[in-house]
Amino acid sequence: MSSSESLSTRIAGLLLDANAIQLRPEEPFTWSSGWKSPIYCDNRVTLSYPETRKVIRNGLAEAIREHFPNANALVGVATAGIAIGALASDALNIPYAYCRPKPKEHGMKNQLEGRLDKNSRVVVIEDLISTGGSSLKVVEYLRGEGIQVEGLAAIFTYGFDQSVKAFEKANCKFITLSSYQSLLEVAESREQINHDQLEVLQKWSADPEHWLD
Amino acid sequence: MSSSESLSTRIAGLLLDANAIQLRPEEPFTWSSGWKSPIYCDNRVTLSYPETRKVIRNGLAEAIREHFPNANALVGVATAGIAIGALASDALNIPYAYCRPKPKEHGMKNQLEGRLDKNSRVVVIEDLISTGGSSLKVVEYLRGEGIQVEGLAAIFTYGFDQSVKAFEKANCKFITLSSYQSLLEVAESREQINHDQLEVLQKWSADPEHWLD
Repeated sequence: MSSSESLSTRIAGLLLDANAIQLRPEEPFTWSSGWKSPIYCDNRVTLSYPETRKVIRNGLAEAIREHFPNANALVGVATAGIAIGALASDALNIPYAYCRPKPKEHGMKNQLEGRLDKNSRVVVIEDLISTGGSSLKVVEYLRGEGIQVEGLAAIFTYGFDQSVKAFEKANCKFITLSSYQSLLEVAESREQINHDQLEVLQKWSADPEHWLD
Repeated sequence: MSSSESLSTRIAGLLLDANAIQLRPEEPFTWSSGWKSPIYCDNRVTLSYPETRKVIRNGLAEAIREHFPNANALVGVATAGIAIGALASDALNIPYAYCRPKPKEHGMKNQLEGRLDKNSRVVVIEDLISTGGSSLKVVEYLRGEGIQVEGLAAIFTYGFDQSVKAFEKANCKFITLSSYQSLLEVAESREQINHDQLEVLQKWSADPEHWLD
């Protein structure tokens, strides 16, 4: 428990260092969903930092070994999960594929790219859990194709109740390397945020959809 | 020369083994561009074969060291080049990003994902060179952003004159691990195709756009 807790805070620190996560409680971001938010997270930028990328790759591989010991293949969620999923599958030396939450609009209209046999027991790889919607579309698609889904592993979660409930409803185990809670701890201990800002950030995560209503 | 020739035929053989490349001179495929073709190539399936994936990853890393010694970052072309580009950047331990041939339609409308500094000298990574169109869109985009493009590396090329001319015109060096020519040699030596089929396949590559006209 303590070792995984320390990985969680370590990765939260690395995401802050890389500016993959930005906190702006006073000047909220507007997400593409329209939600106003004091945080913006883009884990793809970690691909540009080889040392951070390696910690995340190895962290995912280790977490998959521990939490999904029966997995024999990984599937990255397109597009943000493709690269880091490939790296984790390389570290584990197991087959890899990637999957779009919905079919491609042109060409062969493939949703899954790669080739998984029917004995595959896959872990879906995502960069970020927000509501969980697009990840779960991939889970449903794979199950519909007769592929056994062991669960999902992601780099970071905002920790929304909505996502926890969505994964429960889909009966899909999920784990993340780091979380919003660890992020706030690190940001506070580094004095990147003060007590008032911490309260704003906590209030947001409790009800992100209606935060500024 | 002989060692790179043997890598070229080795990879052609692996692509045939994985059914990443299928030859059907008697029953042509229809590509999404509308072209009729006796060959279909989907290198993404190699992601599902760890040993083949490793040969391609290491082959790309080695080719980049040899042909682009000044490169200090890689950029994968979305989506088919993202995973293999990530693996090659990991093998080389250098920064990585990926780029769409055109901007994303929703959200932040990013074209480049990841973060490259202005001193980046990048090699663009593609799975397959057909006409070269989408790869060169990424090259143009990067140059427009002030990023130095050392060239492009891909797994396979159909070897069309059109692509050679397009890269020349864009003044962009490109290399591939394997080629249509190596593929035909391997397929013939394995007796997967006979002499008549070889002729059909050669005729196609000389003028793919008007092959069946």
